[in-house]
Amino acid sequence: MYEQYSGAPGEKAMFACGRQSVKFPVPVFVRSSASVVGKKEGEGPLGALFDVIGQDDLFGANTWEEAESCLQRDALHLAVKKAGLHTTELRYLFAGDLLGQGIATSFGLAQYGIPLFGLYGACSTCGLALSLGAMAVCGGFADHVGCVTSSHFASAEKEFRFPLGYGNQRPLSATWTVTGSGAFVLSGSRGENARAIVTGLTPGRITDYGVRDSMNMGACMAPAAADTIACHLRDFGRGPQDYDRIITGDLGVVGQQALLDLLLEQGIDIAERHTDCGIEIYDAKRQDTHAGGSGCGCSAAVLSAYVLKQIEEGVWKRVLFVPTGALLSRTSYNEGKNVPGIAHAVVLEHIG
Amino acid sequence: MYEQYSGAPGEKAMFACGRQSVKFPVPVFVRSSASVVGKKEGEGPLGALFDVIGQDDLFGANTWEEAESCLQRDALHLAVKKAGLHTTELRYLFAGDLLGQGIATSFGLAQYGIPLFGLYGACSTCGLALSLGAMAVCGGFADHVGCVTSSHFASAEKEFRFPLGYGNQRPLSATWTVTGSGAFVLSGSRGENARAIVTGLTPGRITDYGVRDSMNMGACMAPAAADTIACHLRDFGRGPQDYDRIITGDLGVVGQQALLDLLLEQGIDIAERHTDCGIEIYDAKRQDTHAGGSGCGCSAAVLSAYVLKQIEEGVWKRVLFVPTGALLSRTSYNEGKNVPGIAHAVVLEHIG
Repeated sequence: MYEQYSGAPGEKAMFACGRQSVKFPVPVFVRSSASVVGKKEGEGPLGALFDVIGQDDLFGANTWEEAESCLQRDALHLAVKKAGLHTTELRYLFAGDLLGQGIATSFGLAQYGIPLFGLYGACSTCGLALSLGAMAVCGGFADHVGCVTSSHFASAEKEFRFPLGYGNQRPLSATWTVTGSGAFVLSGSRGENARAIVTGLTPGRITDYGVRDSMNMGACMAPAAADTIACHLRDFGRGPQDYDRIITGDLGVVGQQALLDLLLEQGIDIAERHTDCGIEIYDAKRQDTHAGGSGCGCSAAVLSAYVLKQIEEGVWKRVLFVPTGALLSRTSYNEGKNVPGIAHAVVLEHIG
Repeated sequence: MYEQYSGAPGEKAMFACGRQSVKFPVPVFVRSSASVVGKKEGEGPLGALFDVIGQDDLFGANTWEEAESCLQRDALHLAVKKAGLHTTELRYLFAGDLLGQGIATSFGLAQYGIPLFGLYGACSTCGLALSLGAMAVCGGFADHVGCVTSSHFASAEKEFRFPLGYGNQRPLSATWTVTGSGAFVLSGSRGENARAIVTGLTPGRITDYGVRDSMNMGACMAPAAADTIACHLRDFGRGPQDYDRIITGDLGVVGQQALLDLLLEQGIDIAERHTDCGIEIYDAKRQDTHAGGSGCGCSAAVLSAYVLKQIEEGVWKRVLFVPTGALLSRTSYNEGKNVPGIAHAVVLEHIG
């Protein structure tokens, strides 16, 4: 349906690729990134890689929501500094979080005075922000943009589940919401420390397999991840072997198995090269996190601290990064609705 | 800081204009639009202009949230039909609503199977969606995109204020959340019935004047509207006289006065050409709506039914459309936070 550029600008989608993907004709650099996480995340296997680890999970704030705002504020501040830029040089921000009406973002980023595109993609928001930010840069609308997302264990439990004081038991399929934020500066110019290039995108569609268990988010999101990954490979005419890693956001161990099975049914075997940020961030047995980590902050912090490091060092040349989100609210859940999923894929490559 | 295009693509922001605006070099057409509203909106002064008016406010659904989903689903369906397209020809959707975790959007648009960029900008979401959609089309990432937003009186009262059953009294500064949705197809090609061209944008930044009254949203949002409008005029080197109308989203009569005063302080007089979707949609005295209408659906439905009609017919040649949003949640409000505002401006012009 879409061809490559074949007419006056604006008349044909020049950079559309296949059914729902985008292939960038010029490099969009991940010019810098930063991660700020909580104590538990600092004690996990990736602890040494995060830029900032909080001593407690309040980060000097009075409420969990304010604490989450601090995470975003600090992560962006650090990322901009690492990019060798001043915050006034960021033209736009693309940001969101898990809370109702995105309050962690509003109150965390207001002070920067940078025009803000507020986003909601549940735990896929990091992919959403990077996708829209990369389009803004590649399209010639901005030199430098910031992409920020966060989650906080305590604010998320309050928003979606039970007050922490209840001390409710969690089934083994449940994930643990990561307290953390990742911020990224995307830019058309490389700067001195650019970490990777964004070369393509496959924005995802909502996928609903009828799962209703808010304590098994992995199962809710796996069908969306499978849909986006299969579509991505089709659109780009690639196979799993063209990626050193295919990395989902927060499926955890239950969702991972579902993803591998769903893709195998379509003849796509990613078992050897799949990993999941939610699996990487905690030592599930030692840290009692059950199926793994979750939340916007999970994929964002792991991308910044671990995935981009591997790409930067050339250990991985090309990665498909696929943050996954579960689309529910307390209201939709209480009204008996399903929990559909969505996943947005971003192609990240080593700067040769 | 930004010049017009002066180098290899991607290295300089080619379409950046002034501090925070975008000027489109090729036409982005509002190829079609549609509005679906509730009974009360149908009884207002614009009643004859809306495409669909519901008989009751449940639209055949079982809950208010589902009803809001139906609004989005139906508005998009109608807009796509008017564009002379099939829904499979929309490459991406840009959509959002007021509810926590954007559930009206998730459950309303899932069935289309179109990749979705989920947005949250409170009542400014229509401007957010049109901005990002127009950048996607102009940037060459999509031929046709859909932009959809909604609000529903009953779901919004439940989300932000009190259960309807309480029958609580509303102060005169309060606005009435519009039950309605507006959907827009943006396209690089004109089609047969294109209604207007998007020629520029000024995405807004969060503006916080310390107002905390959730029953006076107009006052919360007026500073953001003033900031975006002043910045827009500066970035484009224009004055109010260059616009036939400057139309805010849902300031209502209280917010309107604040906006006019704030701009006058900067020497900008828009009194003669300002109007507000929230003022237009209801007959406040007859319909007991106090300060006016509000909600994402307010600006979206009024844009589709009224503003685009005036532009299409050439009554207005150039309009600055500035949806306004108040950034609060029940949680942020209860924790004593301010209610900051945000406003995103879109330049809409008559197709000559």
